[in-house]
Amino acid sequence: MNWNREKLMEATRRQMPASRWEHTLRVMETAVELARRTGANPEKAEIAAILHDYAKFWPEEKLQEGILRYRLPRELLQYSPVLWHAPVGAEAVREGLGIDDEEVLEAIRSHTTGRPGMSLLEKVIFLADYIEPGRSFSGVEEVRRLAREDLNRAILKALDNTILYLIGRGFKVYPQTLLTRNDMLDQIPQTHPKEESH
Amino acid sequence: MNWNREKLMEATRRQMPASRWEHTLRVMETAVELARRTGANPEKAEIAAILHDYAKFWPEEKLQEGILRYRLPRELLQYSPVLWHAPVGAEAVREGLGIDDEEVLEAIRSHTTGRPGMSLLEKVIFLADYIEPGRSFSGVEEVRRLAREDLNRAILKALDNTILYLIGRGFKVYPQTLLTRNDMLDQIPQTHPKEESH
Repeated sequence: MNWNREKLMEATRRQMPASRWEHTLRVMETAVELARRTGANPEKAEIAAILHDYAKFWPEEKLQEGILRYRLPRELLQYSPVLWHAPVGAEAVREGLGIDDEEVLEAIRSHTTGRPGMSLLEKVIFLADYIEPGRSFSGVEEVRRLAREDLNRAILKALDNTILYLIGRGFKVYPQTLLTRNDMLDQIPQTHPKEESH
Repeated sequence: MNWNREKLMEATRRQMPASRWEHTLRVMETAVELARRTGANPEKAEIAAILHDYAKFWPEEKLQEGILRYRLPRELLQYSPVLWHAPVGAEAVREGLGIDDEEVLEAIRSHTTGRPGMSLLEKVIFLADYIEPGRSFSGVEEVRRLAREDLNRAILKALDNTILYLIGRGFKVYPQTLLTRNDMLDQIPQTHPKEESH
């Protein structure tokens, strides 16, 4: 890999307001720390963190265009625009910034919903985005605590929080978010009571 | 249609313990009442209600066999056995009792998880099973109340309850359950605040 880190930072900073750039800097730090601790590649973690919100502040029309142009799943258009910047951003940095590392691109692409079969790098970016020290939403402390012990349990908790929030507010839940959660459950050793039926 | 109602009842009664047969009788009554009120076919509702739990007390091995033999989605095997009796039961009554009405079979097949694009008959059976007067689980009263006004809102609430229960207990959620819930949201006129992002 031979990335011009400063150039990527500058290109990304220009896509977003200052407050989001501050978030990005915190995700970088958190991601590098998580990567070092868990054995993921810290350089890739840093690059993916820099780029993860590249398209976050693009107008909805531009994101919609991106979904069509990059032939991303059309199904995305039936769900919240909040989901669009991650997959569009991955294609945009591939095209516009020459990023061709598929692991890095996948970590950008999956950072909002995760996906079944996430790599360690993807898990690091997903969690760094969720727990960076500027986050203060309900439940984040428990996810921070779990992230010090077990990335899978931390991601499971984060996704559970998201799904519960969306259901409580009457919003649709993107199916991949649930599939990722089910996959985390499969990856965590369980000793469970049997599910009751009605 | 030319069904021997008494014969179907007798054949079904023999598949289950007395307590479940009592449940079936209550689902029949509730389903016929819901059908009359909403314009679904009461005769089909009654037949589907009689048959909906046909395979409920079959041993897990027999249900697994049914999933393979009837070429049902193999994915089912990755999820709770609680889900197996509905799709296996539909094929079993087609094969064993000569039921060939696709609407009735679909209502049996989808009665646990629903599915996107449910027919009115399917909605009636799904709800009758959830709200029959013997049910006492948490949240059932609200679903009963909603069922008097709007089947879609009642089903949404029932599915939300199920998903919240499963998440709270750390169980996997069958993706179709979520897809049905999202579909109900699409069918209910909404005036929503915008989803917040993190």
